Amino acid sequence: MTNSATNLRLKLPVACIILEVIIIILFGALVQYDNETDAKQWHKELANGSSNYDNDFYYRYPSFQDVHVMIFIGFGFLMTFLQRYGFSSVGFNFLIAAFALQWATLMQGFFHGMHGGKIHVGIESMINADFCTGSVLISFGAVLGKTSPVQLLVMSVIEVTLFAVNEFIVLSVLGAKDAGGSMTIHTFGAYFGLMVARVLYRPNLDKSKHKNCSVYHSDLFAMIGTIYLWMFWPSFNSAVTAHGDDQHRTAMNTYYSLAACTLATYGLSAVVAHDGKLDMVHIQNAALAGGVAVGTAGEMMLTPFGSMIVGFLAGTISVLGFKFLSPILEEKLKIQDTCGVHNLHGMPGVLGAIVGAVTAALATKDVYGDGLVCLLVTSWESVPSPDFMVKLPLLRNRQTPSKRAFTQQFNSTLPTLCVAGWLMCFILKLPIYGAPPDTI
Amino acid sequence: MTNSATNLRLKLPVACIILEVIIIILFGALVQYDNETDAKQWHKELANGSSNYDNDFYYRYPSFQDVHVMIFIGFGFLMTFLQRYGFSSVGFNFLIAAFALQWATLMQGFFHGMHGGKIHVGIESMINADFCTGSVLISFGAVLGKTSPVQLLVMSVIEVTLFAVNEFIVLSVLGAKDAGGSMTIHTFGAYFGLMVARVLYRPNLDKSKHKNCSVYHSDLFAMIGTIYLWMFWPSFNSAVTAHGDDQHRTAMNTYYSLAACTLATYGLSAVVAHDGKLDMVHIQNAALAGGVAVGTAGEMMLTPFGSMIVGFLAGTISVLGFKFLSPILEEKLKIQDTCGVHNLHGMPGVLGAIVGAVTAALATKDVYGDGLVCLLVTSWESVPSPDFMVKLPLLRNRQTPSKRAFTQQFNSTLPTLCVAGWLMCFILKLPIYGAPPDTI
Amino acid sequence: MTNSATNLRLKLPVACIILEVIIIILFGALVQYDNETDAKQWHKELANGSSNYDNDFYYRYPSFQDVHVMIFIGFGFLMTFLQRYGFSSVGFNFLIAAFALQWATLMQGFFHGMHGGKIHVGIESMINADFCTGSVLISFGAVLGKTSPVQLLVMSVIEVTLFAVNEFIVLSVLGAKDAGGSMTIHTFGAYFGLMVARVLYRPNLDKSKHKNCSVYHSDLFAMIGTIYLWMFWPSFNSAVTAHGDDQHRTAMNTYYSLAACTLATYGLSAVVAHDGKLDMVHIQNAALAGGVAVGTAGEMMLTPFGSMIVGFLAGTISVLGFKFLSPILEEKLKIQDTCGVHNLHGMPGVLGAIVGAVTAALATKDVYGDGLVCLLVTSWESVPSPDFMVKLPLLRNRQTPSKRAFTQQFNSTLPTLCVAGWLMCFILKLPIYGAPPDTI
Repeated sequence: MTNSATNLRLKLPVACIILEVIIIILFGALVQYDNETDAKQWHKELANGSSNYDNDFYYRYPSFQDVHVMIFIGFGFLMTFLQRYGFSSVGFNFLIAAFALQWATLMQGFFHGMHGGKIHVGIESMINADFCTGSVLISFGAVLGKTSPVQLLVMSVIEVTLFAVNEFIVLSVLGAKDAGGSMTIHTFGAYFGLMVARVLYRPNLDKSKHKNCSVYHSDLFAMIGTIYLWMFWPSFNSAVTAHGDDQHRTAMNTYYSLAACTLATYGLSAVVAHDGKLDMVHIQNAALAGGVAVGTAGEMMLTPFGSMIVGFLAGTISVLGFKFLSPILEEKLKIQDTCGVHNLHGMPGVLGAIVGAVTAALATKDVYGDGLVCLLVTSWESVPSPDFMVKLPLLRNRQTPSKRAFTQQFNSTLPTLCVAGWLMCFILKLPIYGAPPDTI
Repeated sequence: MTNSATNLRLKLPVACIILEVIIIILFGALVQYDNETDAKQWHKELANGSSNYDNDFYYRYPSFQDVHVMIFIGFGFLMTFLQRYGFSSVGFNFLIAAFALQWATLMQGFFHGMHGGKIHVGIESMINADFCTGSVLISFGAVLGKTSPVQLLVMSVIEVTLFAVNEFIVLSVLGAKDAGGSMTIHTFGAYFGLMVARVLYRPNLDKSKHKNCSVYHSDLFAMIGTIYLWMFWPSFNSAVTAHGDDQHRTAMNTYYSLAACTLATYGLSAVVAHDGKLDMVHIQNAALAGGVAVGTAGEMMLTPFGSMIVGFLAGTISVLGFKFLSPILEEKLKIQDTCGVHNLHGMPGVLGAIVGAVTAALATKDVYGDGLVCLLVTSWESVPSPDFMVKLPLLRNRQTPSKRAFTQQFNSTLPTLCVAGWLMCFILKLPIYGAPPDTI
Repeated sequence: MTNSATNLRLKLPVACIILEVIIIILFGALVQYDNETDAKQWHKELANGSSNYDNDFYYRYPSFQDVHVMIFIGFGFLMTFLQRYGFSSVGFNFLIAAFALQWATLMQGFFHGMHGGKIHVGIESMINADFCTGSVLISFGAVLGKTSPVQLLVMSVIEVTLFAVNEFIVLSVLGAKDAGGSMTIHTFGAYFGLMVARVLYRPNLDKSKHKNCSVYHSDLFAMIGTIYLWMFWPSFNSAVTAHGDDQHRTAMNTYYSLAACTLATYGLSAVVAHDGKLDMVHIQNAALAGGVAVGTAGEMMLTPFGSMIVGFLAGTISVLGFKFLSPILEEKLKIQDTCGVHNLHGMPGVLGAIVGAVTAALATKDVYGDGLVCLLVTSWESVPSPDFMVKLPLLRNRQTPSKRAFTQQFNSTLPTLCVAGWLMCFILKLPIYGAPPDTI
């Protein structure tokens, strides 16, 4: 699967099998069906007057499958644009994603899914595990072609764990809203990946730079990835938002943001190109920045108008980043960001956090009506329909708009985690992984 | 992205950015969330006893995503069968679709979505915008390879506007039913495209005809487009039909029509081929004609038996069109229909309109029971569940079957609009767009 | 479409058109809308207090579309890995699937959908027809490249008929549960295909063996098939299970089984490879075995822990099968299993049947609570919500765990059917089909 002489005969099997055995043992000890997947518990709820049609499966599963396609087809094929790495990107993407979603179920369960010492799993935990996996794949984009599958598995173990810690701090401790993950998924994944790319810097890699170029069919395969990510991003951002208007609005805001972002991308790409031709790398990546940038504010009353402005800005900074910032990152900071994740996930993610903070600060009872309550509870707290009106007065006093705006801000935990991650990443430099050589 | 020396450096950015800025301003002035996406309004409905699970998001969004895949993957990849235009077809398809869905939201809103001077948007407006986009992409198929992206954007502005006018006349003024768009989407898109192709006729284009041939991998990419269109057509036809039996029946009728159409296509293709081999162009296109032909009648009590006969006929005329009619169109009428949209969307669309008229004329209370009411209201009028039985006697007298059959007929507005469009299309001949040259 | 000199001019059209005409006549005579798709019947139910949102369309259609993608994209592209058969696999897959789903509607209708002499069709019959089609496509995988499209159509006629008989015996007579079809779909399809491959054995085929090798782009196309099958398998296994916790749990068990299976596949593949490189054929196939192996037990309280163990085992036996068993099948038994369906569907299907029998035998009221009833009714009997609690005491005495375990066992009908099928398959050896020659 790699053209290199890398011998995976021992290292990869040992890593895969040991990790899977550890996961299976931990699942056996800790994981239980939640109330909606357990036969006994669900039939108790049915006896209490629920209907089988109330099972959350019917209101989350279609979104889950869209997210699933983004993770496995979207990310997998987006990274095939490098001719040399077509196989690796799809094949390694598959392996890492299948591992990360299991590990994420455990790590996210530890931090916010424990019920009497057990992790409860259901459709929401499946979506959240896929989200965490998305963050790992973003980081993979920054180091594509410089790592062996074993290194990627080790990176996943570390990143998933830190992701769960960061997510816990941002959502549960600070109480921020971030349903589409501008902060927790995209910003975190991008900067984690850049950090690893810095650690793995290879001064001689540019010697084989001509192999990095894309070819006709590679670009068509990559467009499959791009378009699936683009189409299903409304499902991604709305997958775990509150039911009803929230989920509906999030999907629509994302749809408009992406449409505006696409026009900005084509326009800007033609401006900055040398010869007036469109650059496929811009189209494959920057057109998606609109989805990242409404990840936090998408569920708020951002309006289609606001969403389109955010999308337009995101596309603009992303194209400019590819053109002007990426070369600087490589030359000055020695970060070879293979897929340009800084431009697609990093900067638009920061923009998304700022937009989210501003939109939350502007939220008033006049605009949201009784829906303001949904803005006050975090994604991890459910707003169950029955006692909805009872909870309302309690929650309304909990946080003032100014406090919300504060917690929405670009969170202070990120730098801390980056430093922690940096130290741990030196583990990846140990000469035991059989990484691919610089030149083939 | 094109192999030509076309310099897009100024024209494309100017077009993209000006159009997007106009759209954003109009959205800011005119567009509002509807009752199901607005936090305040929806929470008022919740207070009146609605449940979050009643939000139309859950009953339309999966169909919307299927339609979205047809627009971006289906149409995009279907047109990659020409080796020379692989990039262009996917890349330009992406740009035009992202533009057209925004413009369509505004234009369709003007004609049938205004509430107190504001356009209300929600999942239904998103689906309808995607439908209108589909019509533009059908026209794109007729002019593929003869137009620059700027010309395509100008064409989209005109076509989307005329589409909304035509749709308003057919559905609201004439009161026809056309949920799957045999008339409004397919017939309109196909003949608009043929008209533009006639305007842009280039006598020397056939000199580079050998570049039009397909190659192995192009054909596999095109099959991705074909199969996605084929699989999701039941969702396309049923996406905006009334909830309940209508939506269920429409999906099923389309499914059977497509299956029968596929067997007719394979059979006929082998008959008309020179050497007894199957022609990939037939399979990639004609197998889809069954979906077009039940676009109008799909929601009626067409029965699986009737659907299969319609599908079989549609496949037959489509293959025969590719074989015998397309060469005549090019030689006699000087219409170079690159993708054969006349065979896939034009003739099957007319067949669909006729089938719809006949099926509507045969509708009786004996067959439809109380469901006859759904046949009497157009797609743009909602049949809300609560006052359903109250509305029934009022509506029943509104139109007699014969009047319905009349309004279903191949509508008289189409020729008018074609003439109007023809005049406007001369705009596309202005020598300012940087269109690709005849030979490369 | 084939490189061979095979002349399809007469045989294919005759087969396609005659078969389609027969199907249309039978549909006209026998097929009716069911209560949820018939306008009159459904509006009677509405008058009795049902809501349009209760229509089963909303609870089955998203799963149906996922299954549809697996059948047409998944199976179609999975088989493109052979460079020589790229076109054939997608194109013939399309033809056979479009035929088989119509024939399956009739055959399955005869055996368990008759209501007063009529076959009732709706979303469940559409899913079941797709399932039966899946079984035919599994068999197609075993004979890929050795058959003409006419032979494949004849094979489909026979296989669909026998599939319906076998399904009737397993589900209705023996009363086994097999929602995901470990036994009825995968085991049946695989062994039927192997039998046909044995019948069509060609001693000289290995002379052109070098044409069987995969190339770069073929492998990427095949990965599209693999990943779609992998992603949507949870929908496949849960598509016809009972609503509520059953459907939710089945999807989740399948998701965990597949994730564990993928890690086992990558690990084992690197172990058994000659040079320590991953074998794309293993990844494209064995990673899916986890879905097959929980087809029967997935709806039971298998727990995530149990699902992962089953997935891990399935991946292991599948990789070992590709490495060690396939060469033996070809050399000793003269079975050229082109796509290795024995390793992906055959052995994992048998494993799934055993796991299902054990899990069913262990089912207790203590674990399942009132949900135990769902385990006692087969897929073909519906558990309607209203009279659910009434039925409960009646059903509880119907079968004891030990009897259930017995009926779950590797069913005795399979060998019988294989012999019957074997005889009928000699029909395929008649020299009338224009099969492709051994060497090109």
